[in-house]
Amino acid sequence: LLTQDQRQQLEVVLVRPRNPLNIGAAARAMANFGLNNLTVVAPWEPVWREAKSAVGAPEILANARLTQTLAEAVAHSTLVLGTGTSTTRKAEQPVLSLPDLPPYIDGQLTQQGRIAIVFGPEKHGLTREDLALCHAMIEVPTDSVQPSMNLGQAVAVCLYEAVIHCGISDISSLPHSTPATAERLDLLTSLIDEVMEAARYSPASMRQSNLHDLRLMLRRFAPNEPDTRRLLGLFRRILWRLNNLTKTS
Amino acid sequence: LLTQDQRQQLEVVLVRPRNPLNIGAAARAMANFGLNNLTVVAPWEPVWREAKSAVGAPEILANARLTQTLAEAVAHSTLVLGTGTSTTRKAEQPVLSLPDLPPYIDGQLTQQGRIAIVFGPEKHGLTREDLALCHAMIEVPTDSVQPSMNLGQAVAVCLYEAVIHCGISDISSLPHSTPATAERLDLLTSLIDEVMEAARYSPASMRQSNLHDLRLMLRRFAPNEPDTRRLLGLFRRILWRLNNLTKTS
Repeated sequence: LLTQDQRQQLEVVLVRPRNPLNIGAAARAMANFGLNNLTVVAPWEPVWREAKSAVGAPEILANARLTQTLAEAVAHSTLVLGTGTSTTRKAEQPVLSLPDLPPYIDGQLTQQGRIAIVFGPEKHGLTREDLALCHAMIEVPTDSVQPSMNLGQAVAVCLYEAVIHCGISDISSLPHSTPATAERLDLLTSLIDEVMEAARYSPASMRQSNLHDLRLMLRRFAPNEPDTRRLLGLFRRILWRLNNLTKTS
Repeated sequence: LLTQDQRQQLEVVLVRPRNPLNIGAAARAMANFGLNNLTVVAPWEPVWREAKSAVGAPEILANARLTQTLAEAVAHSTLVLGTGTSTTRKAEQPVLSLPDLPPYIDGQLTQQGRIAIVFGPEKHGLTREDLALCHAMIEVPTDSVQPSMNLGQAVAVCLYEAVIHCGISDISSLPHSTPATAERLDLLTSLIDEVMEAARYSPASMRQSNLHDLRLMLRRFAPNEPDTRRLLGLFRRILWRLNNLTKTS
């Protein structure tokens, strides 16, 4: 069971939700499990208005943060967990079965990290591009005949596992290292992208695809903040050198 | 994880549901977790019709069993688990926190028992009388500020715990004793009630209340089938003797 403080380290992100009832249900599940940090990414305006104005709408909706992109929504997060099923799409990142989640959550809690659990839109879930911003994909081990869960129910089940089955009583004795936020990883990604460009690493037609693979790889590495600082320093130096050499040549 | 066979030992009972959307959501969660035995107790006819005829209604609804009473719904069950929160009502039977459920489910599975998980109506949940037919009450450890879960979400969370976190791979080596069905416990209850009456154990005004306490006690005892047969034999004998003595006196 997560403590009240630990629950503050956990956030929910809904990406482009389409059904006001599901938004309400997601918020209610958050209230049931004592969470209150909700971010909604690019909701359709009438849908969002209807969800917020519904009779008995949870207070969480009034205080929700709105962003235009998922990158912005998780910028300050240190562990970003996308949800989905690997039946619909071959995952490009580690896939975690929901009951195996606790050690990962607990690991982040010990490092004072911020965890975002990200849910995609009702019909098709998170896109490949959305998932490239996630460290891992969580999969609820549903039946192959009916694998796809209703959004409100998926949120309830994932939060139940994360809040009730996770949590460690004494974290003070564990080793501590500051994890890197998603924003820092994005900074590193952009910098490496610039370096690849400057180094003429790949033809222009491959740039988007290389960037995508880079995002996935960095999240798999899960560098901590000191690692990230070191890598940023290294690639800044490389970029400076490349540009300098290009100018003088 | 329960095997396909073990999932057949698990049933869902919805008591007097009021919202067709919730009935649909409950059925969908069952499909997600590979369950297909649903019983609906005394639904309001228009509600039930609407739920069954909804676009994309799960097949489970078409095959659902309808009963007039909860007693009838769980007659063949050997472990009846009511759901609720002890914040709304002081429980009269053992209360199990949902994450503590697995050993109880696994215990029944080893005995080839049939487990019913019972959900009450949306507004107020199961009544005291409903709960007297349950061996234990399962409580989802929700936040005290917003303890009450949406019905569809409660079903999803309970089935997730029961299907995904339960299940034992090798049950053949464990001791085996046939559990008593709810119907057999009801038979025993009625017989003891008759005995109490014949013995003038309690004034008429106390009869209902004593019967209620008796139901609770027998479920707490959880007699197996041989126990039940023995007790039935004993109380039949007592009743015969009491009636006989009354006649001759």
